[in-house]
Amino acid sequence: MKTISDSVYTSRLVLIREAMKKKKIDGFLVTDITNIHYLTGFSGSSGFLFITGKEHFFSTDFRYRNQSEQEVKGWDIVIERGNRIQTIQNLCKKTGTKNLGFESSVTYEFYNQLSQKTFQITAADHFIERLRTVKNEAEINTIKEAVKRAEEAFLEVKPFIREGAHERAIALRLEERLRKKGCRNIPFEIIVASGSHSALPHARPTEKKLQKGDLVIIDWGGEADGYCSDMTRTFLIKGQHISKQKELYQIVLWANRKAISSVIPGIESKQVDSTARTFIKNAGYGEMFGHGTGHGVGLQVHELPRISWNKSSPVRENMVFTIEPGIYVPGLGGVRIEDMVVVRKKRGEVLTSLRKDLEII
Amino acid sequence: MKTISDSVYTSRLVLIREAMKKKKIDGFLVTDITNIHYLTGFSGSSGFLFITGKEHFFSTDFRYRNQSEQEVKGWDIVIERGNRIQTIQNLCKKTGTKNLGFESSVTYEFYNQLSQKTFQITAADHFIERLRTVKNEAEINTIKEAVKRAEEAFLEVKPFIREGAHERAIALRLEERLRKKGCRNIPFEIIVASGSHSALPHARPTEKKLQKGDLVIIDWGGEADGYCSDMTRTFLIKGQHISKQKELYQIVLWANRKAISSVIPGIESKQVDSTARTFIKNAGYGEMFGHGTGHGVGLQVHELPRISWNKSSPVRENMVFTIEPGIYVPGLGGVRIEDMVVVRKKRGEVLTSLRKDLEII
Repeated sequence: MKTISDSVYTSRLVLIREAMKKKKIDGFLVTDITNIHYLTGFSGSSGFLFITGKEHFFSTDFRYRNQSEQEVKGWDIVIERGNRIQTIQNLCKKTGTKNLGFESSVTYEFYNQLSQKTFQITAADHFIERLRTVKNEAEINTIKEAVKRAEEAFLEVKPFIREGAHERAIALRLEERLRKKGCRNIPFEIIVASGSHSALPHARPTEKKLQKGDLVIIDWGGEADGYCSDMTRTFLIKGQHISKQKELYQIVLWANRKAISSVIPGIESKQVDSTARTFIKNAGYGEMFGHGTGHGVGLQVHELPRISWNKSSPVRENMVFTIEPGIYVPGLGGVRIEDMVVVRKKRGEVLTSLRKDLEII
Repeated sequence: MKTISDSVYTSRLVLIREAMKKKKIDGFLVTDITNIHYLTGFSGSSGFLFITGKEHFFSTDFRYRNQSEQEVKGWDIVIERGNRIQTIQNLCKKTGTKNLGFESSVTYEFYNQLSQKTFQITAADHFIERLRTVKNEAEINTIKEAVKRAEEAFLEVKPFIREGAHERAIALRLEERLRKKGCRNIPFEIIVASGSHSALPHARPTEKKLQKGDLVIIDWGGEADGYCSDMTRTFLIKGQHISKQKELYQIVLWANRKAISSVIPGIESKQVDSTARTFIKNAGYGEMFGHGTGHGVGLQVHELPRISWNKSSPVRENMVFTIEPGIYVPGLGGVRIEDMVVVRKKRGEVLTSLRKDLEII
C-alpha cells in the first residue's frame, strides 16, 4: 500500500513555498523526521530538507543513502558526512540563501550552532504540523485501515479479558495480534489497567490479575503505512459492589457522545473540550478529568490539533482527532472511552466501530 | 528488580549541585525524560525537575500524580496544570532563583518562551548525559540482564534463520521472544536484512525470503529495568559464489576484535574508532564503512560516549558501549558484528557472549 501519490508531494511543496514567501524567508530547513516523511515519503530516521524558491534538497547520512534513493523522488540527494551545520552552510552558499527558516522543534543546541553562522535565521512555528492536521482522502483511508487492524486485533483478544487474567498478558497478546494484522509499529505502549491502577491515566501493565468489581481500561493503537490509530475501551468485571463503577461509566459515555456530536467544521477546539468537560463537571467529577478531551492522529499518534481547554484552534474539515474523556477516582478506578473522529462537512464521522455501551464481563 | 538504591539518587543530586556551583547557576531545570528517570526513578513520560542548592522539586501533570507519588521519593511534587513555563516561573519566585540552568536538548520553542521571562538562563550542555556514561555495578548488572534476555531470545529464534524464511517473520518471532523474556520495551525496531538489503545499514525487515549466498544482518536489543542492550550478528546462507561474502566477514571480525582489544581507561574514543577504521581501510573497504564504530548504551540504546572519528572523549572505567564495525557493498550485501563492552581497569570486558565466528547456514 502506498498512501501518497507523487502529485500530493508536489502540492505540499507548493504550499510550503507560498508560506516561505509570506514569511519572507528564501530558504526553509525541515528537521522534524515526521515532517520529512510527510513531504518526501522517506521512512528512515535521520535527515533534513533544504527548500528554496526553486530548488529542494534531501540530505541524509551514509546509512540511508540507498534507502533515500529508493524512497525520495524528485529531490536532490546530498549525503552529509559528520557535520550537519557545515552541510547546511554549504547549501546556503550554493543556493544564495540569505534568510533561512527553521522549525522551532529543533533543540536549543542545534539552534545555537546554527545561529552562530553568518546567515540570518527565522523560526517557523508548527508550520508543517498545521498542514498535517487536514488529511486527504488517501490519508483518511489509510487511517481507517489502521483503525481496522487495531479493532480486529482487539476482538481476537477480547475473550481473554476476564477475571484472573494478568494485565500484562492481555497487553502482550494484543501487541502480538496487532503485529500479525500488519502493524509495523505499535504507536505507544499498550495500557491495560485494572482496579485502582485504572485511576492512573498512564499506568503500565503489571502482573496484577483482573479482580471482581474492577474497572479495566484498555488503550491501544494500530498502524498502517505509517499512519496511526488510537482507541480506548473500559470494561467492568462482574462483582458485588459495582454501582459506583457503573455510574462513572455512564457519565463518561455521555461526555464522549456529547463531545462527538459537537464536532463540526468551524467550531473552536476548546468548545469541543468544554462540551465533555462541562458535562463531567456538572456530574460532580470535574476535578477527576485532568487531561484534554482529545488530540490529532495521523503520522504521529499525538499530533495537532489539541482538543483541550488551554489551547484552541478552529476545527476544519478532514481533520482527524480523538475524543477521549475520562474520570479517575483514586483508589477506586477510572473510565476512559476514546473514539477517533474525522471532521466531515456537517458532522464528525466516527472511525471507531467497536461497541461502547457498558460491558460487564 | 530495582536497580538503583535511594543513596545512589542522593549522590547523583550531590554531583549536580557541585556542577551548579561551578557553573554559577542557582537553579537547574532538567527536562530530558531519561535524565529525569536517572535522577529520580520516575518511569512516566512527562515532567521536569527543578533543583536549587537546597531544594529539589519534581513536577508532572495530572496524569502522573499517583505514579510520581509512588516512584519519586524525597522530592517535593508539584502538579502542573497546563502551562509549564508558568510553573517554572512560580518555582523561580518561590526559591529566589536568579540564574536558571537548562538542558540544551530542549526545543528552540521552549527555550524561546523561557528566555522571555525575567530570570537569567544558562545552557548546560549534556551535563547529565556525561554523568550517565559511567555506570555503577548495579547498572552494569542490569545491563548484563538486558544482554542475557536478548541472547536467550535470539538463540530460540536462531533455528528459523535459514533459506526460505522471510526477514519479517524472523524479526517478529524475535520480538515475541524478547517480550517473553521480560523485556518491557524493545529498544529499537529489529533489523533483519538479507542479500542486497544487508548493504543498507538501517534496512527495515521486508517479506523478502533468505536466499542462497545471502549475507543476513540481524541487529536487535533487549531491555531490563529500563536499561538496554544492543547487538548484531551476520550470517551467510549456503550458496555457490560466497567467497567475497566470506572475505567481508573476516575483515569485519578482525576489525571488531582489534577495536575491542584497544579498549582501556584513558584511551581517546576516536582512537578506538580509528583502530577498526584503519583496519577496514587497509583492507580496501574504507569507503564502505560510513558509520561510527560504536556508542554508549544504558537507559537509552544510543547514548554517550560516541566511538567515532568526528567527536572524541577519553574512555573511562565502567563506561558501557558497543563496538560495531561494518562493511556495506551496494548490490552485494553487508556485514556488521556488534558487541557490547564494559570498560574495566585493564581492558574491555565483552558483555555479548554469542559466538561470532562465521556461521554458514
